[in-house]
Amino acid sequence: MTPITVFDPDDPRVAAFRDVKERDLTGRQGLFVAEGEVVLRVLASRASVCAPVSVLIAEKRLEGLREVLERLPSDVPVHVAAQAVLNAVAGFDLHRGILALGRKPNPAEPGALLDRLPERAVVVMACGIGNHDNMGGLFRNAAAFGAGAVLLDPTCCDPFYRKAIRVSVGAVLRTPMATGLEAGSMIDLLQGRGFEVLALTPSADQALAELAPAPRTAILLGSEGPGLPGEIIARCRPVGIRMAGGFDSLNVAATSAVALHHITTAKLAEG
Amino acid sequence: MTPITVFDPDDPRVAAFRDVKERDLTGRQGLFVAEGEVVLRVLASRASVCAPVSVLIAEKRLEGLREVLERLPSDVPVHVAAQAVLNAVAGFDLHRGILALGRKPNPAEPGALLDRLPERAVVVMACGIGNHDNMGGLFRNAAAFGAGAVLLDPTCCDPFYRKAIRVSVGAVLRTPMATGLEAGSMIDLLQGRGFEVLALTPSADQALAELAPAPRTAILLGSEGPGLPGEIIARCRPVGIRMAGGFDSLNVAATSAVALHHITTAKLAEG
Repeated sequence: MTPITVFDPDDPRVAAFRDVKERDLTGRQGLFVAEGEVVLRVLASRASVCAPVSVLIAEKRLEGLREVLERLPSDVPVHVAAQAVLNAVAGFDLHRGILALGRKPNPAEPGALLDRLPERAVVVMACGIGNHDNMGGLFRNAAAFGAGAVLLDPTCCDPFYRKAIRVSVGAVLRTPMATGLEAGSMIDLLQGRGFEVLALTPSADQALAELAPAPRTAILLGSEGPGLPGEIIARCRPVGIRMAGGFDSLNVAATSAVALHHITTAKLAEG
Repeated sequence: MTPITVFDPDDPRVAAFRDVKERDLTGRQGLFVAEGEVVLRVLASRASVCAPVSVLIAEKRLEGLREVLERLPSDVPVHVAAQAVLNAVAGFDLHRGILALGRKPNPAEPGALLDRLPERAVVVMACGIGNHDNMGGLFRNAAAFGAGAVLLDPTCCDPFYRKAIRVSVGAVLRTPMATGLEAGSMIDLLQGRGFEVLALTPSADQALAELAPAPRTAILLGSEGPGLPGEIIARCRPVGIRMAGGFDSLNVAATSAVALHHITTAKLAEG
């Protein structure tokens, strides 16, 4: 690893990091920008399903990160800049001092993705998640409880948005996922492979806490506002999280954590 | 409710809302600023333990909110301004179009707060929560699962910070709380009233999922980074959430949701 010192914010070698806040929103041909040490560690690890492309860090971070940077493939350039130059490149004060450019994995064929899962498995599906904090939280929880895959419908926001990756503490970069699938198709795929699909919805008669999960279980989470459409719920087993009177409101990421904890720890249903 | 139209961002009647982003960080003698319709509804409701002081809304929101605004005490002024004036007052683009000034409740005497709880009760305690999203999430989850009180140590951030209130969907304004208590004192107070105090820590031998909770249970949550100090854990019953290998990482708000769900739904321990 031979650091390349950058003095000019307009240096073309760091053009991919220019004004990253604005560019985050526009997408960029299979690439993403991630930030922070935790995420860099995931990107440099074998657990990552994404390839690192380039790194830009503050001078003051170089020594502390050397051991991580040495783990990157030798053809990944490591650019180093003074904090002021780094801020000028990023377009905001980058206190963390670490930006990394990565390449998204090739889109997974969802059937093949599910075919690789073991006999006992949990899958997370989501429709209409529009908030990047929630998207990041979903992935963090999916990884924490060992979900085998995350499936997202076309109305979900991009999990490779910088903030979603950060909130996921890098889980977005290491979790098998398929995106752009209509909810109905996801349900078909899962049920065809023996998954019981649980639709998380406050109105359900079945309480999550009393549910004996099937060995293969998928949870389906709806958008923060309106929740899941009725015709989708009707194709699944509706399950609700019991809450205190007058405040039946749980964030969608918190919902995923509660459901995944129950499913991965509760006694399985009798075959 | 007679709306007061404001034309000048420097109008002294809306001075409390000036540059609210910066002022949020400095504290202000028992007052707080909240934003958004969900939070305004809580502040105007009987569930709130905080008094509304003043409101500033965008003209375009007036008709839609009239029914909520009519529920405010008649001495609470409702200021109305064009969006541009509102933005100039707030110091940023206030898309939500709603700001409310409220008064924090008088600091609760923590012993008295706990004395009011029923025989079966859950309490949330937290040490060193520095992130306002997490603080808001803790309160939202505490309300969702009917926790009787939230106790915070002096190193926690202010739950009345605008963003924490928003993320809590108003739960901060309706949840009995005590702040500024050292962890050791909180544990004394709770154990003296028959609470079993569970310290949530990944290293614990006892898995949360296998725990039969006591009728009175408190959960103690540590900071996002280092977690709880060993000497505090030693005074509690350590409990861990089992996670998948290689990723033993759950956000503190998600941890609270998982723990509260288990405690409020699991079979109680035999007396």
